[in-house]
Amino acid sequence: MLEYEGDMFSAPRCTGIRLAEGAYELLSPCMPSKIVALWNNYHELAAKIGKPAPRHPLFFIKSATSVIGTRQPIRRPVGYAGKIVFEGELGIVIKKEARNVSADEAGDYIFGYTCVNDVTAIDVLSENGDFPQWTRSKSFDTFGCVGPVIETDLQSAGAKLTTRLDGVERQNYRLADMIFPPHGLVSLISRDLALLPGDIIACGTSLGVGSIKDGATVEVDIDGVGCLSNMLAPAA
Amino acid sequence: MLEYEGDMFSAPRCTGIRLAEGAYELLSPCMPSKIVALWNNYHELAAKIGKPAPRHPLFFIKSATSVIGTRQPIRRPVGYAGKIVFEGELGIVIKKEARNVSADEAGDYIFGYTCVNDVTAIDVLSENGDFPQWTRSKSFDTFGCVGPVIETDLQSAGAKLTTRLDGVERQNYRLADMIFPPHGLVSLISRDLALLPGDIIACGTSLGVGSIKDGATVEVDIDGVGCLSNMLAPAA
Repeated sequence: MLEYEGDMFSAPRCTGIRLAEGAYELLSPCMPSKIVALWNNYHELAAKIGKPAPRHPLFFIKSATSVIGTRQPIRRPVGYAGKIVFEGELGIVIKKEARNVSADEAGDYIFGYTCVNDVTAIDVLSENGDFPQWTRSKSFDTFGCVGPVIETDLQSAGAKLTTRLDGVERQNYRLADMIFPPHGLVSLISRDLALLPGDIIACGTSLGVGSIKDGATVEVDIDGVGCLSNMLAPAA
Repeated sequence: MLEYEGDMFSAPRCTGIRLAEGAYELLSPCMPSKIVALWNNYHELAAKIGKPAPRHPLFFIKSATSVIGTRQPIRRPVGYAGKIVFEGELGIVIKKEARNVSADEAGDYIFGYTCVNDVTAIDVLSENGDFPQWTRSKSFDTFGCVGPVIETDLQSAGAKLTTRLDGVERQNYRLADMIFPPHGLVSLISRDLALLPGDIIACGTSLGVGSIKDGATVEVDIDGVGCLSNMLAPAA
């Protein structure tokens, strides 16, 4: 592992120092100002839940304060005894401030790709019948698992995402099944709100989400990116 | 106007320099990392729309990149020809990092209060029948009007908020009608997500919201805080 210093998104400089395996700890590979998280962005999932493909990306903001890196524990919110679910997702990491970007230019605004586990206190989401609580159910501390690294050269066209729960495969879907693929997402979302360096677009999930028992480990693995692993801390 | 330097939220130092009226421009009085925006937080509005008072604050995140100060123009999003509406609101400005704060302690985490115009591209909000687009309809650049200042000593109990559209009063409601008042909001929201210094909780609006024509000016005026004034830029 080579050490770099300076601004990761503009002009990082290699110090020449090489770190041995075990001599460092991976934190979240970026500290976003916000996570823009998609709903209903895979054809297979849309078909399963019986919803038409949206005509514009449907999203909410997940608080950046929820972010943790790989191998850091997910913690059950104080006073919440309900179900906690995993959602394995592709994360797009923004390289530079993006406003009204065209789809053709969108690639210039993407720094790279990472794995996201969009953890959700699912009982909170629909607790109030008048107002779906997307932000609240997904913004608890440690509910935004990101990493292990950002891959700057992902050829995502053929890539698959798999999610394992205690080693058992629970999600296995092709990123190419996205309704709005990465360049389209960056372009369309940048017309709605400004994206800043390090911001993450969580591209939504597909089939196979499920609940995590206290003490269980979730791995989100994307071909060409790596494996994000987080345990839901055992009950105290 | 006296000049201060340093961190506004911890130990600002007065430089002793006095600025003459007109020698400065008011920007947004803080740069939040996020705006936590409430829905259905006034008894009068809940009664009018026929919804029960919620048992927990209902909120979404409005992107911090939407923020402007007083007298800065609201701009119509590129390609959006629909209705743009004003919502006059009390804004709570957070003083220090807040997590799992009790209602009794909440006052220590409040830096002060400001006026918010929670501008909304209302046609976007309900454009998709499956997913209300709270974040998208409210996060366009310039849609988060904040100011003119932060009042650190507001006695809000008896305060009224009035909103004027081109000088004509359109909203006039008592802050005391809030379902979850400021200390309760800070306490309850801090159990859901971490609040950071400068973050704003927009407390929701009450009766009288309406649309803004291009070229019209909206003033949000709170007793004891001041008057936030923003024009929707005339069509080019």
